[in-house]
Amino acid sequence: TGSHLAEADSQTEWTDVQKKIIPWKNSTPSLDLEMAFQDRAAKLGKSNSRLIVVASLIDKPTNLGGLCRTSEIFGASALVVGSLHYIQDKQFQHLSVSAEQWLPLVEVKPSQLVDYLQEKKTEGYTIIGVEQTAKSFDLTEYCFPEKSLLLLGNEHEGIPANLIHHLDVCVEIPQQGIIRSLNVHVSGALLIWEYTRQQVIKQKHQQ
Amino acid sequence: TGSHLAEADSQTEWTDVQKKIIPWKNSTPSLDLEMAFQDRAAKLGKSNSRLIVVASLIDKPTNLGGLCRTSEIFGASALVVGSLHYIQDKQFQHLSVSAEQWLPLVEVKPSQLVDYLQEKKTEGYTIIGVEQTAKSFDLTEYCFPEKSLLLLGNEHEGIPANLIHHLDVCVEIPQQGIIRSLNVHVSGALLIWEYTRQQVIKQKHQQ
Repeated sequence: TGSHLAEADSQTEWTDVQKKIIPWKNSTPSLDLEMAFQDRAAKLGKSNSRLIVVASLIDKPTNLGGLCRTSEIFGASALVVGSLHYIQDKQFQHLSVSAEQWLPLVEVKPSQLVDYLQEKKTEGYTIIGVEQTAKSFDLTEYCFPEKSLLLLGNEHEGIPANLIHHLDVCVEIPQQGIIRSLNVHVSGALLIWEYTRQQVIKQKHQQ
Repeated sequence: TGSHLAEADSQTEWTDVQKKIIPWKNSTPSLDLEMAFQDRAAKLGKSNSRLIVVASLIDKPTNLGGLCRTSEIFGASALVVGSLHYIQDKQFQHLSVSAEQWLPLVEVKPSQLVDYLQEKKTEGYTIIGVEQTAKSFDLTEYCFPEKSLLLLGNEHEGIPANLIHHLDVCVEIPQQGIIRSLNVHVSGALLIWEYTRQQVIKQKHQQ
């Protein structure tokens, strides 16, 4: 469980990683992030997806650590968190099993989200909220664009109303049980998986 | 976050629930379980799936609690655990958010698994191991039968070799990252989702 990472890791790489963990707006994020993508793609020996997972509204280090692991495994291009301090949290680290060393992390505070989403829209991303609303698409029916940005809601409040207006679309996971809502890490994982599944099928049809 | 459950719950229902939590082999499990299905289906006002999630090999209460929540939400017919003692664990309860009150739980110890899987086969279930093997189907290509039993592996050792022989099929989740393996709750959630998604699509085509 992650012991191969210890072998693969080295001081030099860790220094590189530190450079990749960048607060948005304090540097030239698009450029840095682009370099991080390419660097990681080179390490993986294949092209990366264009999926950005935005977890800035999430509070619990366990959920963030889990999302970090899952996002890395499915080759997401970046995980956006509300504060880079979470990375130092023991619970985050326990759940992430070192994935933060391989996945570009970007800090976007909740107060910066409107601007960040606007910027990503101009870069061609479709802004997808994971939320139950009257107009939400059912996940079994939604077709993900190649450039997809997933915005996950807070554990308690979901996505606040002022942000809903800035989304291109909402997607909800159809749920049958008596317990109403999935854990946010699981919700995120299902959308990341569904994006990945659709991309795999598209690529097979192109061959 | 589950507060509606407190309202819906009552002493009578909780007594019913206690009856549903049954050790396999100490009673007539198929009959009891069948009754539990029908009871729950009546509460939900719809027919249940025929998906059984077997988590007897899983050790961590957090993973079991999470699987309990996710299985309940997607209407699985039962969650099988290695020991009913897990239900008393604080970490289990924290993650399950009371889902154990609505989902039939069955106790099947790891040593009983071969017999249990045999019995389920004779009942028409396809026994599906969630494991990476040379012969595994890719999850993007596997078509789930209506009566599916998912066997999840241990956090560290996966599914032991002696059990692999008793499976009808193995399914693996294609993974792209440097970190090799998903958390077992997430792996389980993705297969539960994929089963559900396929059933939803089948039902739409039948209409």
